[in-house]
Amino acid sequence: MLDTAIRNATIITAGDRFTAQIGIRDGRITAIAEDVGPAVEQIDATGLWVMPGGIDAHVHLEQPQGPGIVMADGFESGTRSAAAGGTTTVMPFALQQKGQSLREVVDAYHAAARGKCHVDCSFHIIITDPTPQVLGQELPALVKAGYSSFKVFMTYDDLVLNDAELLEVFDVARREKAMVMVHAEGHDAIRYMTRRLEDAGRTAPYYHAASHPEIAEREATHRALSHAELTDVPITIVHVSGREAMEQIQWAKRRGRKLYAETCPQYIVLTRDHLKGLNMDFEGAKYVCSPPPRDLASQQAIWEGLRDGTFDIFSSDHCPFRFEDPQGKSVEGARTSFRWVPNGIPGVETRLPILFSEGIAKGRISAERFVALTATNPARLFGIYPRKGTIAIGSDADLVLWDPARKVTISQSLLHHDCDYTPYEGLEVTGWPARTILRGRTIMAAGKVTGAPTDGAYVDRGFSEAFDQGAGDQGIDG
Amino acid sequence: MLDTAIRNATIITAGDRFTAQIGIRDGRITAIAEDVGPAVEQIDATGLWVMPGGIDAHVHLEQPQGPGIVMADGFESGTRSAAAGGTTTVMPFALQQKGQSLREVVDAYHAAARGKCHVDCSFHIIITDPTPQVLGQELPALVKAGYSSFKVFMTYDDLVLNDAELLEVFDVARREKAMVMVHAEGHDAIRYMTRRLEDAGRTAPYYHAASHPEIAEREATHRALSHAELTDVPITIVHVSGREAMEQIQWAKRRGRKLYAETCPQYIVLTRDHLKGLNMDFEGAKYVCSPPPRDLASQQAIWEGLRDGTFDIFSSDHCPFRFEDPQGKSVEGARTSFRWVPNGIPGVETRLPILFSEGIAKGRISAERFVALTATNPARLFGIYPRKGTIAIGSDADLVLWDPARKVTISQSLLHHDCDYTPYEGLEVTGWPARTILRGRTIMAAGKVTGAPTDGAYVDRGFSEAFDQGAGDQGIDG
Amino acid sequence: MLDTAIRNATIITAGDRFTAQIGIRDGRITAIAEDVGPAVEQIDATGLWVMPGGIDAHVHLEQPQGPGIVMADGFESGTRSAAAGGTTTVMPFALQQKGQSLREVVDAYHAAARGKCHVDCSFHIIITDPTPQVLGQELPALVKAGYSSFKVFMTYDDLVLNDAELLEVFDVARREKAMVMVHAEGHDAIRYMTRRLEDAGRTAPYYHAASHPEIAEREATHRALSHAELTDVPITIVHVSGREAMEQIQWAKRRGRKLYAETCPQYIVLTRDHLKGLNMDFEGAKYVCSPPPRDLASQQAIWEGLRDGTFDIFSSDHCPFRFEDPQGKSVEGARTSFRWVPNGIPGVETRLPILFSEGIAKGRISAERFVALTATNPARLFGIYPRKGTIAIGSDADLVLWDPARKVTISQSLLHHDCDYTPYEGLEVTGWPARTILRGRTIMAAGKVTGAPTDGAYVDRGFSEAFDQGAGDQGIDG
Amino acid sequence: MLDTAIRNATIITAGDRFTAQIGIRDGRITAIAEDVGPAVEQIDATGLWVMPGGIDAHVHLEQPQGPGIVMADGFESGTRSAAAGGTTTVMPFALQQKGQSLREVVDAYHAAARGKCHVDCSFHIIITDPTPQVLGQELPALVKAGYSSFKVFMTYDDLVLNDAELLEVFDVARREKAMVMVHAEGHDAIRYMTRRLEDAGRTAPYYHAASHPEIAEREATHRALSHAELTDVPITIVHVSGREAMEQIQWAKRRGRKLYAETCPQYIVLTRDHLKGLNMDFEGAKYVCSPPPRDLASQQAIWEGLRDGTFDIFSSDHCPFRFEDPQGKSVEGARTSFRWVPNGIPGVETRLPILFSEGIAKGRISAERFVALTATNPARLFGIYPRKGTIAIGSDADLVLWDPARKVTISQSLLHHDCDYTPYEGLEVTGWPARTILRGRTIMAAGKVTGAPTDGAYVDRGFSEAFDQGAGDQGIDG
Repeated sequence: MLDTAIRNATIITAGDRFTAQIGIRDGRITAIAEDVGPAVEQIDATGLWVMPGGIDAHVHLEQPQGPGIVMADGFESGTRSAAAGGTTTVMPFALQQKGQSLREVVDAYHAAARGKCHVDCSFHIIITDPTPQVLGQELPALVKAGYSSFKVFMTYDDLVLNDAELLEVFDVARREKAMVMVHAEGHDAIRYMTRRLEDAGRTAPYYHAASHPEIAEREATHRALSHAELTDVPITIVHVSGREAMEQIQWAKRRGRKLYAETCPQYIVLTRDHLKGLNMDFEGAKYVCSPPPRDLASQQAIWEGLRDGTFDIFSSDHCPFRFEDPQGKSVEGARTSFRWVPNGIPGVETRLPILFSEGIAKGRISAERFVALTATNPARLFGIYPRKGTIAIGSDADLVLWDPARKVTISQSLLHHDCDYTPYEGLEVTGWPARTILRGRTIMAAGKVTGAPTDGAYVDRGFSEAFDQGAGDQGIDG
Repeated sequence: MLDTAIRNATIITAGDRFTAQIGIRDGRITAIAEDVGPAVEQIDATGLWVMPGGIDAHVHLEQPQGPGIVMADGFESGTRSAAAGGTTTVMPFALQQKGQSLREVVDAYHAAARGKCHVDCSFHIIITDPTPQVLGQELPALVKAGYSSFKVFMTYDDLVLNDAELLEVFDVARREKAMVMVHAEGHDAIRYMTRRLEDAGRTAPYYHAASHPEIAEREATHRALSHAELTDVPITIVHVSGREAMEQIQWAKRRGRKLYAETCPQYIVLTRDHLKGLNMDFEGAKYVCSPPPRDLASQQAIWEGLRDGTFDIFSSDHCPFRFEDPQGKSVEGARTSFRWVPNGIPGVETRLPILFSEGIAKGRISAERFVALTATNPARLFGIYPRKGTIAIGSDADLVLWDPARKVTISQSLLHHDCDYTPYEGLEVTGWPARTILRGRTIMAAGKVTGAPTDGAYVDRGFSEAFDQGAGDQGIDG
Repeated sequence: MLDTAIRNATIITAGDRFTAQIGIRDGRITAIAEDVGPAVEQIDATGLWVMPGGIDAHVHLEQPQGPGIVMADGFESGTRSAAAGGTTTVMPFALQQKGQSLREVVDAYHAAARGKCHVDCSFHIIITDPTPQVLGQELPALVKAGYSSFKVFMTYDDLVLNDAELLEVFDVARREKAMVMVHAEGHDAIRYMTRRLEDAGRTAPYYHAASHPEIAEREATHRALSHAELTDVPITIVHVSGREAMEQIQWAKRRGRKLYAETCPQYIVLTRDHLKGLNMDFEGAKYVCSPPPRDLASQQAIWEGLRDGTFDIFSSDHCPFRFEDPQGKSVEGARTSFRWVPNGIPGVETRLPILFSEGIAKGRISAERFVALTATNPARLFGIYPRKGTIAIGSDADLVLWDPARKVTISQSLLHHDCDYTPYEGLEVTGWPARTILRGRTIMAAGKVTGAPTDGAYVDRGFSEAFDQGAGDQGIDG
Repeated sequence: MLDTAIRNATIITAGDRFTAQIGIRDGRITAIAEDVGPAVEQIDATGLWVMPGGIDAHVHLEQPQGPGIVMADGFESGTRSAAAGGTTTVMPFALQQKGQSLREVVDAYHAAARGKCHVDCSFHIIITDPTPQVLGQELPALVKAGYSSFKVFMTYDDLVLNDAELLEVFDVARREKAMVMVHAEGHDAIRYMTRRLEDAGRTAPYYHAASHPEIAEREATHRALSHAELTDVPITIVHVSGREAMEQIQWAKRRGRKLYAETCPQYIVLTRDHLKGLNMDFEGAKYVCSPPPRDLASQQAIWEGLRDGTFDIFSSDHCPFRFEDPQGKSVEGARTSFRWVPNGIPGVETRLPILFSEGIAKGRISAERFVALTATNPARLFGIYPRKGTIAIGSDADLVLWDPARKVTISQSLLHHDCDYTPYEGLEVTGWPARTILRGRTIMAAGKVTGAPTDGAYVDRGFSEAFDQGAGDQGIDG
């Protein structure tokens, strides 16, 4: 007998939409049928859409920051927030600090995560110190052990890799079949702009936007994809913010390059005007993230890219800092210059409702495309498909049941993170997750997180499908 | 109890790939599960791939031709050939002749098809005489009755519509939500080239290719998509042969236009050199079709388009004429000039194996993309999804079981059409349909057509998904 | 001894700018030097710019119209107006009416021009009836006789050529080395829009703009350049109005096609809003021309094209109809629908000052580029360089002396045409022609036309430089 | 009375072509006329083309190299060679070495040049050490003093500037109106490739080409133009070698950026196959330069760019090293790896004949375009127009008289440099300079350099026309 049966489900995957029942046993989907037969637990999905649980491939949790700064969410609150927002797998970053061995980094991050996960999780490794030891021994061993993706930065004083280092990392990635995620903004251009703005006395949070110009993002994007072309390796450009960088990605894809791209909620509902706060004050710090939101034309561009396949995945880049906290946005110095405001905003819980509402409900993308962007493609890109990311026999029963008609006004009071604000306060959305199911167990229902921080498990990963023969340049949409 | 259970199936749809059993009852898929339970008939799919049955949205059967010319296949042999090649639905054309009412055309075509179909079928209507009566009354009534797609020609003396007529047809299509398929080649350019070639004594079948230049195809494509933009209606450009026309389609898609495109086997494995026959002789007539195959660079371009979403569907444009037949390719006059060679080649049976082998086996496209191009997208584009085109609960049990490793040399002796040759004679392919199932009934197994010409049914259609809100410009790939 | 010496001249050509004296004898420039020596007539050009006299390659004079309509300007008033505006050569159109032989057309047009020209002139032939006799005998003979350019129309009921005819004309043009000017707007699309607008009761002059959509201009442009590519002949797309058609031209030029393009003053200073008149009334008829002015973004596009070489020449498309005249804009029926408003506006006199002011004075183009667009390139494109279009030894002494700083408000009262209004009424310009010199003779000075209608001569032409080897795709800018 | 009269001259400038006499007095052109009157010296140019003397904006003379390496040409032999090849002005580079003040650099270079110039010359300054002192004081002072152009390198261990330094130099250039020339190749990518090639034992000169891939040139080009866009300054990308980098430049120009580009003879007549030498031997070192020649498709691309205005100037990048010399190509280590082969080839003497022959004689570009690329545009771009670069009243009488029909086989024995080989040995050209005139004095006639090394003078320069209002994006072609 089944453990759970979901009856009257309108099932939507990246490829299909139909009505059926779903049968679950031992945490996996074992039947999809007109009638799956008896089950211990019955869930009536009448009026709801049943989609694969969200996979958020870009979240920062409990990540070490500069002195005196602490990220608002650790694993417990971050994954709780994810569960509440319909996400069943998160992929946070294990950050190497200079001098650290990667194994040490990963072990420490596992220790931090242990027993504190409401949803499943898997780590990307941020490489900041690509020593011969790291490149020649640690990375190959870790990829083999299932840590099949890295992240590199082209900016931030303490994270930036130079071009020689990027080329070496890409070279290893090709040999080991690892997916490299690239934060593509040009460091020197940002420093140049920052200095000019500060010299001109333009220090309010709003000027953070000007200090990270689209040209710098475009240039770094072109540089990264050129290095990837030279080393013949697929890479993923993360958090693309507007048309300039996007056009570079389109150009490369049209030339047949294997290149993947991600965008995020902040680039479809925020603009740089949000950084003005109230009359150019510090309220703007609530929206400081990198790259910054751009303008309405950029939002339009991002929608084009979400529709036409330029973007393969849609992640949150959840990177929360408490606003009223001297260990958060209000850290010492932040009011003297945007330069000192911690970069990042929360979003793991609101990611799916925002894309559901702005995308599906407003007729910009189909529900199938929504699933591809938020679950199936991240699973394919990071080596956990078909275990995760779809509704199929044998897959983990990670599901989210959507009430497509429910109208909600996003508000901090509704959310489950440990941040003290949401940048989407007041945004009205249509469509809201009614229930989240992790490997057959309901972990959120009716807005209440019902699971325990021991529900989540670590997910070892295989290779990205980007390394499959025949994946071609159609992206990873099947 | 189920009628049929397919055990050990590697199921591949446009979106997913996983192993399960498929349960069928009353011709529909009622269960997909680890174990679907008992069934009357057991099919063991070990080692096989189970895909949705092919949908060939572009075939010509028993279509009236010029005087003295008869098409090689009627419904019986054409659908038999389709079944043998893994196709479970064909969409032939009901051709209006000047002066005919469309209802009359459709009725006559139904009469011709009745009792002669091995697979399901549904008609597109070819409009050659768009009188006010046709546009104002007949078309709207027929669309409402399920004939939700038309075809128009921009060339051929007896079929061509002028720009004013095209605009009127497009206008009706927008109002009635009908999908218009466009044969885009410029008539006057073809006549100009034909006359020049004949004046120069260049009359061998080979010169058919020069008489239908890529520029003429490109120009007509641009014209068609401009008319569609003016009238604000989605259209489908059929049988695109090379880069020139393809770039126009890409350009329009990138501008956000809803535009769809089809290509065919002849454009990925033939070139104009095939029209040379043996030493420029009449053998070349076996490859005369319009647009003609181009060159190797064009084939490369078509592959790009198949991968990157420029092409939404892959059809055969099956249009068979017997080679040694005075009512076929050898009609009176054909040896005096290419102008008189009947245009068209057979291909309904070889369509899927060619794309399977050249696409999947050679690593150019994924198996999922194969399904999208040959089944799911045609179903979505022509209003029969999810009844057809996928493997889902409630869908017709139209399936094709592939032996992905089987090597076959294509040969006329293997085929089931009534044509007396195949243009793909000698082509070696990897992957071959082992069994075709139509609404639960096996109609082909081990190369034998086991069904009856009464198995196929006519399929009424709904609107194309191109008219859905949110279908956006990502094509119809979910 | 020289007839005339221009002292203290700031000479500006398409390639150079320097200070010198110009010596003239027998109507030609015989010396350019620090000191040209003594002369009968002295002209002091201190503070003025001396440029080649303008060549207006697109004017309509005394051209037969539909019943009851008469063009406002014949040769006398039209060339008087040209002289006043700094233009020393005009190229009006000799229009073939159905059934006419071209020789007859040309003879009649010569008769009309004889003794009535204030400036030099040369005819393009409009072909409306391309019979075998016309194509096979008349055109070749006329090209050899110096009529080395034709014009064809893709719209207007009584002028339009179909694609077969266009191809034939292009074919002749290649063989005979004639430059074909193409009015590229799609006739059927215009008729479709016209009918829809009239059906909706939208008949004010303003709706003329909507009835000639940019898509129709773009489509016809693509069609024309495709026909030209097929027949391998250079052509000129005239009066390009906005970005859509312009992008087609850029696309073809970038592919290495020999293709030339013209734009006009109405597309840089008017928009479709001018057609609204006062509150959508008949005042809008003053701006009815085809293609119609578009919008501000189109103006911006045209400037890009003027700068980057997309446009080779800048002409007036002078086509004047009196506004208050029942034989002009106020013809019977014009108030019932825009369809009956005579198409065309005056502009031969204001062409140069508008481009001078909007282009040079506003810093959008250099003075050298101004000369190229308005004199040198038309001369090269239509086979009269270096006799016309530059300031060089041996060239006709056709010169215009500009006061670059003079500010003038354009007004009907200042102009010399026989039209009763100017569409540029009230436009303030910086830069105004102080003197016009035709073959050494001053024909305008200080706003007064001082020449006689016998001053102008007919100019036989050689082949367009577009037919030179090595002209390449850099246009005809040297 | 004139000093010199050139009779029967076919004068060709960037804008015009006509027949006249040229009168010269005190080194300047004072008359162009049918008859310039009596003169002390008579030159009969019957059958010859008279063009502006060539300006070679990119030559390296007597430039300090790494230890043990000496450039083959100093000022005397380099300018002698220039004169022999029809060039009347060269612009060599004054190279700052780390720690040097720029004034010191310039003074030393003046000292080296003094009394050793057969043609006029003017210096660009290479900046390798952009200290605050250099940027804030020395550069502004030198620009004001007429050194209005810099060069920066994005590669070479001892020359490369990082992005922060590039941005600072560009910033100064905008403020001071200096033209920055950029050697755009990505340093880290070159080092990465070099190491991989050496690791694989690929050390022959041929692998120099692979070590400088087109991707690295493209990436650096994009980076440079992005930095220029951010700092809002026009720059010139020098020695563009193929389509990849060229497309970046076209892309930026089409977006309206003020950007200039140069290419060189090696990219139109050499390919990487030349680096193979004889059977991959050290002969290939004769062709080692950076960027390296590419392939035939790249040559084709370069021709497109020369025609369509992508390239503004055509220079030699003369950078000669003797082949058989241990202080030249045969320096210690060079045979152990391409890495140690001095980069550069001679070409100041052959630049014009190669472009004349391959461009004009083969019908790829017009003679006017030749003049623009080799004389007028360099003069405009580097602030010496109209003193140099054209044939106009008041301009320096710098002229080259071409025999357009003369056939010559290029050979080391014909040349006047101090290098011991020419990479163009055996190349047959049509068109050869018959006489070179510098400020009225014949310095080369019939292959003999007749001038003295004291003939040349240093030329102070004004601002580049790139800083003029209205220069727009049409390049600097007038």
